Amino acid sequence: MQKYNFRNDYSEGAHPRILEALARASGEQNEGYGLDRHSLRAAELIRAACAAPQAAVSFVEGGTQANLLAAAALLRPWESVVAAETGHIHGHESGSIESAGHKIIAVPGTEGKLTAAAARRALEQNREEYCPRPGMLYLSDSSETGTVYTREELQELRELCREEGLRLFVDGARLGSALCVEGGGVTLETVAACADMFTIGGTKNGALLGEALVTPDPALAAGFRRLMKQRGAMLAKGMVLGVQFEELFSDGLFFQLARHANAQAERLRQGLAGLGFRFFAGSPTNQLFPLLPARVEEPFRRLCACEVWGRQEGETAVRLVTSWATRPETVEAFLRDCAALL
Amino acid sequence: MQKYNFRNDYSEGAHPRILEALARASGEQNEGYGLDRHSLRAAELIRAACAAPQAAVSFVEGGTQANLLAAAALLRPWESVVAAETGHIHGHESGSIESAGHKIIAVPGTEGKLTAAAARRALEQNREEYCPRPGMLYLSDSSETGTVYTREELQELRELCREEGLRLFVDGARLGSALCVEGGGVTLETVAACADMFTIGGTKNGALLGEALVTPDPALAAGFRRLMKQRGAMLAKGMVLGVQFEELFSDGLFFQLARHANAQAERLRQGLAGLGFRFFAGSPTNQLFPLLPARVEEPFRRLCACEVWGRQEGETAVRLVTSWATRPETVEAFLRDCAALL
Amino acid sequence: MQKYNFRNDYSEGAHPRILEALARASGEQNEGYGLDRHSLRAAELIRAACAAPQAAVSFVEGGTQANLLAAAALLRPWESVVAAETGHIHGHESGSIESAGHKIIAVPGTEGKLTAAAARRALEQNREEYCPRPGMLYLSDSSETGTVYTREELQELRELCREEGLRLFVDGARLGSALCVEGGGVTLETVAACADMFTIGGTKNGALLGEALVTPDPALAAGFRRLMKQRGAMLAKGMVLGVQFEELFSDGLFFQLARHANAQAERLRQGLAGLGFRFFAGSPTNQLFPLLPARVEEPFRRLCACEVWGRQEGETAVRLVTSWATRPETVEAFLRDCAALL
Amino acid sequence: MQKYNFRNDYSEGAHPRILEALARASGEQNEGYGLDRHSLRAAELIRAACAAPQAAVSFVEGGTQANLLAAAALLRPWESVVAAETGHIHGHESGSIESAGHKIIAVPGTEGKLTAAAARRALEQNREEYCPRPGMLYLSDSSETGTVYTREELQELRELCREEGLRLFVDGARLGSALCVEGGGVTLETVAACADMFTIGGTKNGALLGEALVTPDPALAAGFRRLMKQRGAMLAKGMVLGVQFEELFSDGLFFQLARHANAQAERLRQGLAGLGFRFFAGSPTNQLFPLLPARVEEPFRRLCACEVWGRQEGETAVRLVTSWATRPETVEAFLRDCAALL
Repeated sequence: MQKYNFRNDYSEGAHPRILEALARASGEQNEGYGLDRHSLRAAELIRAACAAPQAAVSFVEGGTQANLLAAAALLRPWESVVAAETGHIHGHESGSIESAGHKIIAVPGTEGKLTAAAARRALEQNREEYCPRPGMLYLSDSSETGTVYTREELQELRELCREEGLRLFVDGARLGSALCVEGGGVTLETVAACADMFTIGGTKNGALLGEALVTPDPALAAGFRRLMKQRGAMLAKGMVLGVQFEELFSDGLFFQLARHANAQAERLRQGLAGLGFRFFAGSPTNQLFPLLPARVEEPFRRLCACEVWGRQEGETAVRLVTSWATRPETVEAFLRDCAALL
Repeated sequence: MQKYNFRNDYSEGAHPRILEALARASGEQNEGYGLDRHSLRAAELIRAACAAPQAAVSFVEGGTQANLLAAAALLRPWESVVAAETGHIHGHESGSIESAGHKIIAVPGTEGKLTAAAARRALEQNREEYCPRPGMLYLSDSSETGTVYTREELQELRELCREEGLRLFVDGARLGSALCVEGGGVTLETVAACADMFTIGGTKNGALLGEALVTPDPALAAGFRRLMKQRGAMLAKGMVLGVQFEELFSDGLFFQLARHANAQAERLRQGLAGLGFRFFAGSPTNQLFPLLPARVEEPFRRLCACEVWGRQEGETAVRLVTSWATRPETVEAFLRDCAALL
Repeated sequence: MQKYNFRNDYSEGAHPRILEALARASGEQNEGYGLDRHSLRAAELIRAACAAPQAAVSFVEGGTQANLLAAAALLRPWESVVAAETGHIHGHESGSIESAGHKIIAVPGTEGKLTAAAARRALEQNREEYCPRPGMLYLSDSSETGTVYTREELQELRELCREEGLRLFVDGARLGSALCVEGGGVTLETVAACADMFTIGGTKNGALLGEALVTPDPALAAGFRRLMKQRGAMLAKGMVLGVQFEELFSDGLFFQLARHANAQAERLRQGLAGLGFRFFAGSPTNQLFPLLPARVEEPFRRLCACEVWGRQEGETAVRLVTSWATRPETVEAFLRDCAALL
Repeated sequence: MQKYNFRNDYSEGAHPRILEALARASGEQNEGYGLDRHSLRAAELIRAACAAPQAAVSFVEGGTQANLLAAAALLRPWESVVAAETGHIHGHESGSIESAGHKIIAVPGTEGKLTAAAARRALEQNREEYCPRPGMLYLSDSSETGTVYTREELQELRELCREEGLRLFVDGARLGSALCVEGGGVTLETVAACADMFTIGGTKNGALLGEALVTPDPALAAGFRRLMKQRGAMLAKGMVLGVQFEELFSDGLFFQLARHANAQAERLRQGLAGLGFRFFAGSPTNQLFPLLPARVEEPFRRLCACEVWGRQEGETAVRLVTSWATRPETVEAFLRDCAALL
């Protein structure tokens, strides 16, 4: 086992405040199926944070489930989803969207992001009746390569959807990190104003499990609880999810944890840059992609657990991820050990 | 709000030992997606408890999800499921099995149980090519009306499945309560010897969430983890489920909690019988179905939250459920208040 | 092989006028995928016959396919279909509707028909979020037991659908026979005014294959051609279907053939009644259900191919079906041979 | 309307021999659902032609339907299909395979063909549990760009499937044309020896409609007729398909028609080459892809109906298709009119 672990942001359990809240609520008697007081209050807090007072808010267990439910709820049977080739739903969810009957049209991304231009090309190429008509755009923010969408990019995609009668879905498994980028200019309000449905990820930002699924226009969520039940996404003890989001959206804990993760990534980024590492992709969020020269790869990976992202021209790109649980002193110690490697 | 709540066995959170185990594990760094040490050890404990050393064991979030995954894994696209009309999958899961493409052939139950005779009739009536061929029998143990299967009944269903090339699935959302019936004679070993796949319910027996899905012959579970991922049933922090089952299957906690629930139900049953109540259905488990005469219904239901099960000839059957969290003194106090009603 | 065959109304091929029309069109060059001149003209003729000038009209290969497409087009993923227990989709289509993800809620029929009262009960029993919410009523006219809906019954079901936000689908595999019942009072206009989608069966009324699928409000058919393509229901040589319906709806051939089938059924009915046979179910259409006393069953079935419908109290109900191809002299000869049996 | 139509091979109806056979059979009484004498005999003739005496042979209405049924029959729910990017199922069937729950992994083709090397790369890239595991290779022969597979290529793909536990499916919508390529060396026997399931297209080779679906190992077709019924692919008057294939496989009509189409394509190819046209892709079958210089495009397309295949560097590739119905004198006249254009 390596001394350091930057493999992902879900290795640790939950933030202590969340565990305490769960322990407190565990002694109560609560309504089942997400109708408990905690889930209701968490939904209220999220609506306020999104400035979307009418929004339907549900809590589901994980990201793949949320993506699947969104496609099932928003699409007609013959409609497809347009996503960047790097989109999580395309290669990393074992054919989940397709299991719900919908094709993914994968288009080249720009820095891991779906652009309006690429989406428009996919639309042009699929107008014929025998083509899988796009019904929804899928994007992840932050993206799978750690980049974030600007306010203008989101608005441009929104506009395209309006013109073409499409739905816009934002997979926010790492939305906290995206929103907390320094000078990013995108807020929960921005996302709620642009997306037809989006998730706010808890699992990768301090919760034991759970994603909040937000539908700003509640008419689009009619029947959604029936769909959740049908696909096995409704917990009998729904308070387990509600309590966690209630805690995350009290006193700004959600943003505090995301800022912490970003700050540790920045610490790591500057440290590695200082040691001469270059990066495969620029990323202001909690995922870094340093390039390892051939002679460094092996000792680096003996030192630190991380995922290999790709190989090119003698270099290996790896992914390092920080989280709410990453301690500054761990990062510093790791950087010192790195320096010793070189 | 009523003074007492016997509405169900998932109103409370988790047993303190489980919360403590989660808090301990929360500080560790664990592998994701159910490959953590806790999930692996929990699976090992369950295999031992089932005397099924080769069994594949997975942990999923809830019962509807488990039932859906089992149907998807065990059936060919044109195969149907035979279940009792009262079966949970038939009327209480929002069309979950059908959403996976499979018809349910609902047959009359006997005391809420699927009999081999009824299953055989469904087979006879569906042999033609235009009929939805049965591929699996579904039963819940304990059943939706609180009854339990005998060893002989399970073996007879097993034999029918062998003869007809069917799979046998046991929904064990309340399996703990069934196994802990006094003199019941059915053990985890019995179930593992009869069923092709079955669940061991955690949610209704002291866990925050989670069902263990056991496949005694691992060949039937080939690809099952891909299916879980595809349907959104694989938690990034899989240890959340593993830890709970590890704790439940250490020192017999699982059985201890189920016995407690049964004992409180028995206390309630005897108390109510002593007060002159009759019962809609005999049940040795943690669900009771007393019949309320018309004049008693309203005060009874003001006193105690419970579900209405049905009405007939001036009487109302309600369901009272006890759990691992039901305190004996609460039952006694309730019985005293009941006596005062009459 | 028996001397007579009353097994069904699809044993023979197509009426000579249809074969000739196919032969003529076969030499032309036509647009593909249902956009040929014949399909367009057939749609126009059907719209006129239905007094539904805006209706979307598509042609598909068979009844099961039409039913499946209707469910997929009209329902949201969590919605179910209410049908009589005898409904063709429930037990005779190998789980077709369920393969598209939708549950069928089967309710007791009255003379093989779905009543508004039975549908209303199904709605009442499935209001909870965990229940499979009905989204559509399915009825077959004529029904599987040969009965027909009155204008009032159709209007009552229409009204129920309006109140409850449901769709009404009429499976018209034998609609011709239903519409041509003496004094029936239901016309294509009636059906088009009541149903959200319905079929006009060609296969059982003189065509080689083909059902016209009519959607009076074309907004409900948006995307329907994409769905047809997706489910393999769009013929490259769509003219094969269009030509047949063009011929059927020119000069009233469709109704002429249905009246012929009904008349032969009536001839058979009166002849059998004259011989002392009683009937399992009254039916004014091209399906008869005589009851055979035990001693008659074997010689009767040696004389005539037919389906066994059920057995009760020493009698066997069989189904005799006439068609556009049944010759009066065949019926008369059969009746004479029957008389000789007794 | 243009003077010539080379848009596709399904503009005309059926060969006169097929129409006559249908007319003859139309007067008979036949068993329904593909169990008629013609379907049984057609299956026998096809088994003989394939030297696959145990093969299961079914007849379905069209190519998309056949592809969909094959995927549903051969795959487990979490398995995907590997196909060339140009594969018909990927962009031209409105998401049909995905509607059955399966992802398509599209890989770059070589001259429109799926190579073993490309398939192997797709396998390597999708081994992780979160990836959509390939379960089947899909190829079209002849391909969408008119090319054909060699015996060696088919055998190499067969071998890859054996090694990796995959199924091999051959979409033979234009198999006749592929098998009749001069010196091609691939026969029905070759295909039957390599593919787990394949189609023999009737629609594009002289039938009104219909594809024969052949499964050399009948164990892989267990339950297939139930699946056909379920997906609306079983005609009540199954003889309509059986008769056509019976005729096509009597006296070699199937091959005679395909050779005719190929010969007219060759006539067209040589004529156009003689006029100086170059071709986008080499193709020995009944599809040609001439490149039209900019100044020629408009008059060419006024003269002749055809599909635009793509544009590059000032040239437009169009697709010209010949069929069993293309007359030599029409080709000659077209070539003369072309010459006049230049």
